[in-house]
Amino acid sequence: MNRRRIVQRVAIAIAGLALAPVFAAHPNSWYLRPQTAPAPADNAVTPARVTLGKALFFDPRLSGSDWISCASCHNPALGWSDGLAKATGDGMKTLGRATPTIVNAAFNPVQFWDGRKPTLEEQALGPLTAAAEMHGSIADMKRKLEAIAGYRQMFEAAYPGEPIDGKTIAKAIASFERTVLSTDSPFDRWMRGDQHAMSEAAKRGFEVFRGPGNCETCHSGFNFTDNGFHNIGLKDPDGHEDLGRYAQVKLAVLKGAFKTPTLRNVALTGPYMHNGCYKTLEEVVDHYARGGDVKDNLSPDMKPIHLSERQKADLVAFLESLTGSPTVTVPQLPQ
Amino acid sequence: MNRRRIVQRVAIAIAGLALAPVFAAHPNSWYLRPQTAPAPADNAVTPARVTLGKALFFDPRLSGSDWISCASCHNPALGWSDGLAKATGDGMKTLGRATPTIVNAAFNPVQFWDGRKPTLEEQALGPLTAAAEMHGSIADMKRKLEAIAGYRQMFEAAYPGEPIDGKTIAKAIASFERTVLSTDSPFDRWMRGDQHAMSEAAKRGFEVFRGPGNCETCHSGFNFTDNGFHNIGLKDPDGHEDLGRYAQVKLAVLKGAFKTPTLRNVALTGPYMHNGCYKTLEEVVDHYARGGDVKDNLSPDMKPIHLSERQKADLVAFLESLTGSPTVTVPQLPQ
Repeated sequence: MNRRRIVQRVAIAIAGLALAPVFAAHPNSWYLRPQTAPAPADNAVTPARVTLGKALFFDPRLSGSDWISCASCHNPALGWSDGLAKATGDGMKTLGRATPTIVNAAFNPVQFWDGRKPTLEEQALGPLTAAAEMHGSIADMKRKLEAIAGYRQMFEAAYPGEPIDGKTIAKAIASFERTVLSTDSPFDRWMRGDQHAMSEAAKRGFEVFRGPGNCETCHSGFNFTDNGFHNIGLKDPDGHEDLGRYAQVKLAVLKGAFKTPTLRNVALTGPYMHNGCYKTLEEVVDHYARGGDVKDNLSPDMKPIHLSERQKADLVAFLESLTGSPTVTVPQLPQ
Repeated sequence: MNRRRIVQRVAIAIAGLALAPVFAAHPNSWYLRPQTAPAPADNAVTPARVTLGKALFFDPRLSGSDWISCASCHNPALGWSDGLAKATGDGMKTLGRATPTIVNAAFNPVQFWDGRKPTLEEQALGPLTAAAEMHGSIADMKRKLEAIAGYRQMFEAAYPGEPIDGKTIAKAIASFERTVLSTDSPFDRWMRGDQHAMSEAAKRGFEVFRGPGNCETCHSGFNFTDNGFHNIGLKDPDGHEDLGRYAQVKLAVLKGAFKTPTLRNVALTGPYMHNGCYKTLEEVVDHYARGGDVKDNLSPDMKPIHLSERQKADLVAFLESLTGSPTVTVPQLPQ
């Protein structure tokens, strides 16, 4: 070994020692929660944009009825979802799928259960303008918002020189959503080395979770999702066939496949699955244990997982340790 | 004058001098906002009761649809009202009257536009169980709440030894409402001696407000209401005859009479009147200036008020100075 290589190795060793406390503190950096969410180049997150987006998110005047806001279904009191099996839309009609939480939606590379929109900006206008959901129109929103002095000022502060239109409305709501991130959970504290942050059951549950072919196969990384689409063999209690991702991408394996949701705050966001068919985490664990109910088009990852009753309970304890929900103060809307 | 009377007078003078700074700081104690609201002997406000009541207030699971909460219509984002001319109920059907704000409802000696319930406790169950409003039932609420461990604990902390039932649900919601009080407004700061807290227009508006036979005749005291019922000569745009207080008390003068609402935060709670017939404060001022539109059953106090355009604008400036709205953090509901 020549002198140059010895110097290199010593340097690497010193660097390694210097970094050791960091890795010791964070043995599983795979699970570390980022403190901010990525934003597109043309819509960097600014306080003015977040303030505006938060107001719009809570403002029922964006809907056709003047009564439904984004927060009506993405309700911060219920894990930023609605506690219903399937969402409620205009006229209080029941919609086809469950309301996904918007907590950590900012980390999703695609939005909606079927991933039909790539960005928060493009997602935001969907429910706002769908006749069955908020039943708004860009023209009406523009007219109403332009008539409110407080909003004119907020838009000018957030997007100087740009008009109030679908584009700036969507960008502002997306900016607010980029601040709706999961907060410190017992699991995060345990990851940082606090041995008392999680129960022993939850720690055992984490090991089950990580077992080969188990939950982590799809619910991977800090946000506990692979951001992929899987058919997990669900029956729809209403007998309604939902093609899921297949409606967007015509691959047989994507028939009945839906986006893997985050598990952060999963204890707050029941009922579960895209169709809300399970009320409790216990029912969800049982579903995976038996390898699903419908065997057509099953995702190749879907096989029964042998779990003892104790392992099932441990898994639920682990899932419950992922709760860290952002709190929010209701904004006072401009009149 | 004997020595005894001289001593008395000197004592009174000294006491007067000692109190002078208080009266100088509060020249109009008539308008001083209490910091707490009265509560009945059997339902003193405690932190546990407020916490429980706040959760119930925000919980859509109290409704028949699991989708409407008290906060859906008494929306903190919109002055704890809904911004609609007439309220929205179950199935998103339009109801008969406007949603009153619940800010300072705790100071009202009677509740509802027609005063049909004497207490917040008795009021709370009305909209919760009305089929046209939240469409809940006491039995369903009891069943749902008893099934949630977090609620069982919260009820036990708030009302130890008492069951979860209509009585404790109502008492808890009332306790929360007793904390939803208007906050420091420009008017309050001006009353305390800050000459810059209100515009000159608002100060002139206050003088118009207080003029003999003017607004203060009914909108009196710190909460700007006489807590009485008056027919103010309103047309209903839908041609719907609403008997108002007369349905409760059969006096001719109470036909079409409604409770005088608080003016605190009035700038946040349009549209105005029990039927939401006016969108702006300017329209409201015009209504009173012309002495109302329908002359039958008019309250004896309703006469035209001669106001110049400047006086009208000043009045609106004064009304806008009464804004001090309580903010609230959305509770995380037990699952």
